[in-house]
Amino acid sequence: MNVKDANVLIVATCGPEAPDRCAAPFFFAQKAAAMGASVGICFILHSALLLKQGVAENIYAKEGGRPISDFIVKALDAGVEFHVCDAALRMNDISSDELIEEIDNLVGPNFLITKGLDADLVLNL
Amino acid sequence: MNVKDANVLIVATCGPEAPDRCAAPFFFAQKAAAMGASVGICFILHSALLLKQGVAENIYAKEGGRPISDFIVKALDAGVEFHVCDAALRMNDISSDELIEEIDNLVGPNFLITKGLDADLVLNL
Amino acid sequence: MNVKDANVLIVATCGPEAPDRCAAPFFFAQKAAAMGASVGICFILHSALLLKQGVAENIYAKEGGRPISDFIVKALDAGVEFHVCDAALRMNDISSDELIEEIDNLVGPNFLITKGLDADLVLNL
Repeated sequence: MNVKDANVLIVATCGPEAPDRCAAPFFFAQKAAAMGASVGICFILHSALLLKQGVAENIYAKEGGRPISDFIVKALDAGVEFHVCDAALRMNDISSDELIEEIDNLVGPNFLITKGLDADLVLNL
Repeated sequence: MNVKDANVLIVATCGPEAPDRCAAPFFFAQKAAAMGASVGICFILHSALLLKQGVAENIYAKEGGRPISDFIVKALDAGVEFHVCDAALRMNDISSDELIEEIDNLVGPNFLITKGLDADLVLNL
Repeated sequence: MNVKDANVLIVATCGPEAPDRCAAPFFFAQKAAAMGASVGICFILHSALLLKQGVAENIYAKEGGRPISDFIVKALDAGVEFHVCDAALRMNDISSDELIEEIDNLVGPNFLITKGLDADLVLNL
């Protein structure tokens, strides 16, 4: 199918416990959005920690590379929508007030299922 | 598509080596089943260890939270089907006799492919 | 759908840092190919290290089992196509010259999106 007509959902599952895996969801989301797809990232498990203020600036997927916060900005600039699972906030003891201000969309766990069913491609990263 | 008509396959890949990731397959499976979807979990890699008798009672995704065995019971009660890959049993040196009694469905590795092709949504957790 | 008509994409994400997870992408890809599907593996993150010459011979998913290089050979023999993401090469400081000679297909990150959209089943392992 044509990428411009596509709905892509990326499920981010890793956080600061696996820094080398943290850039990928934002990186591939930004690429898909740049190709014209409608792209969302659903944050579950420890990935929600990456959206806590002050965290992503200090995490690097590769030593000497760009911080995860750079990847986040690029994804947002490309139009990627961020959906944070409220269960992930509870798991990580984060309140919604502590999230970066670009996040205005908390979702329940059912969202992953319904959004996933509507997506043309689901990538779990 | 309507969730009630949907076929959801969750691929569980983590076991006791990553306790914080162990609740998610059961949690999202239960949510999907509660919304009316037909849901199965296919257990590969170390996730099969969670179904060995006496294991899940002592694993917690979050300190102070509920044991994984609670998530397992809730998923089963919601009608989620459990499919255990026999290759995962061999990898973890488990015999089928050691599994919790709710498991009566061992599958070969081809099952992941055929079931995945039939599913409307596949989540790898 | 009939497996023989199916297009299966496996996304390999783990490398030597998680040896127990390294056989699965090749194992399931080979099974799908043996059933008649068209199967590709897209290598991202540290999984690209498995294709560096001399690496996979010394990694074992299970102690006492077969080395990952055996799983690689079996997948290639079954007709599985290997697609290595150039971003993964950069992340792991590998040049394309260092890859095993069976690899002649470097892809950009957009490939994961376009190939994923064309696939009937995407498994992230």
